[in-house]
Amino acid sequence: MRIAELSTRSGVPVPTIKYYLREGLVPPGELTSPNQAQYDELHLRRLRLIRALVEVGDLSIAETRDVLSSIDSPGKTLHERSGMVQRAVTPALAHQASDESLAAATELVANLVARRGWFHGPGHPLWEVLVQVVATLEELDQEDVVALLDDYADAVEPLAEKELAAIVARREADAVLEGVVVGTILGESLLAVLRRMAHANASARALQQTARVGS
Amino acid sequence: MRIAELSTRSGVPVPTIKYYLREGLVPPGELTSPNQAQYDELHLRRLRLIRALVEVGDLSIAETRDVLSSIDSPGKTLHERSGMVQRAVTPALAHQASDESLAAATELVANLVARRGWFHGPGHPLWEVLVQVVATLEELDQEDVVALLDDYADAVEPLAEKELAAIVARREADAVLEGVVVGTILGESLLAVLRRMAHANASARALQQTARVGS
Repeated sequence: MRIAELSTRSGVPVPTIKYYLREGLVPPGELTSPNQAQYDELHLRRLRLIRALVEVGDLSIAETRDVLSSIDSPGKTLHERSGMVQRAVTPALAHQASDESLAAATELVANLVARRGWFHGPGHPLWEVLVQVVATLEELDQEDVVALLDDYADAVEPLAEKELAAIVARREADAVLEGVVVGTILGESLLAVLRRMAHANASARALQQTARVGS
Repeated sequence: MRIAELSTRSGVPVPTIKYYLREGLVPPGELTSPNQAQYDELHLRRLRLIRALVEVGDLSIAETRDVLSSIDSPGKTLHERSGMVQRAVTPALAHQASDESLAAATELVANLVARRGWFHGPGHPLWEVLVQVVATLEELDQEDVVALLDDYADAVEPLAEKELAAIVARREADAVLEGVVVGTILGESLLAVLRRMAHANASARALQQTARVGS
């Protein structure tokens, strides 16, 4: 298909597609004349993925490029590429909590990881992000939220097992890697929206009960 | 305290504090001379909250202002203010999925909400975001992830109940509202990091088992 059709079917404007081509996010089409290229279903698939990561997952173009180049790495095993994808989607936090809060948070995180039997330790990007988030909660006097750390872990652990089982059951390596990317980023959006809906519903039920007791 | 001490204790540079003051994110200090103002613990608390929302929660200055003005709304009940806070932290999605995917996603979301006995319906911002996220997953051929919709809801529902119980147990209205803001935004970061750790651990365990079977 020509670039105009690629634009219609992907919902990405032609100038944006040209920008992605220049930036190497989308592989070049097959030249049919010096000024014309043909694109196929793989280009369409890639554009839909980029659009989802940028518009729903709120990734920057630089982050999206890192993620895509991890999927595309030739000569790496599926396990290596999956690890690269996971690192590419791990956010670097700008926040730096105070030393005191960090010390307290580090101990809480170490205990949690030990209780769970997880392999993460100091120096791992996810460990560092978790310590910063917990330290920030401590600085904001949210000890009652920090006290729910195991409840948060209880919520995600069985879900993570099921997500992984669904994605490794796929047949093709590229579909597995796309699943890791999309599952991580869009699954996070899904979980966040459902959590907010659950909050609103729990809150509404609590109010109804209060009203009933009061009447 | 003077602005220099406020800066040291909050970790926010003086020019940034001045910017927040101009933008109305932080209430003015008490003028002690035409060029000097005094600040107190409430200013410090507010700056720490802003820093957490911007640096950890990745909120824009405009979003942060909306959230803070919802907390501060005078003459509103706690319930009204809590609703305003929740709306202020609900993201507007730039993404627009195709009509076909939206129709399929709407049906899935309607069934989920009915099964859960939730009050959300078409037109509610969270409903609309959920439909867009599910439609995007469908467009990316992630039906096996969409099939886990109930597992996602199962993960967050009991957690949301506990979070709500912890926060409404607080004594002061402002602490409850700060808890809604911080719990929603930073709780989301917490859940996201723990989910990624759980993925990595589930993945590592699956590999070990494969290695053991293969040896």
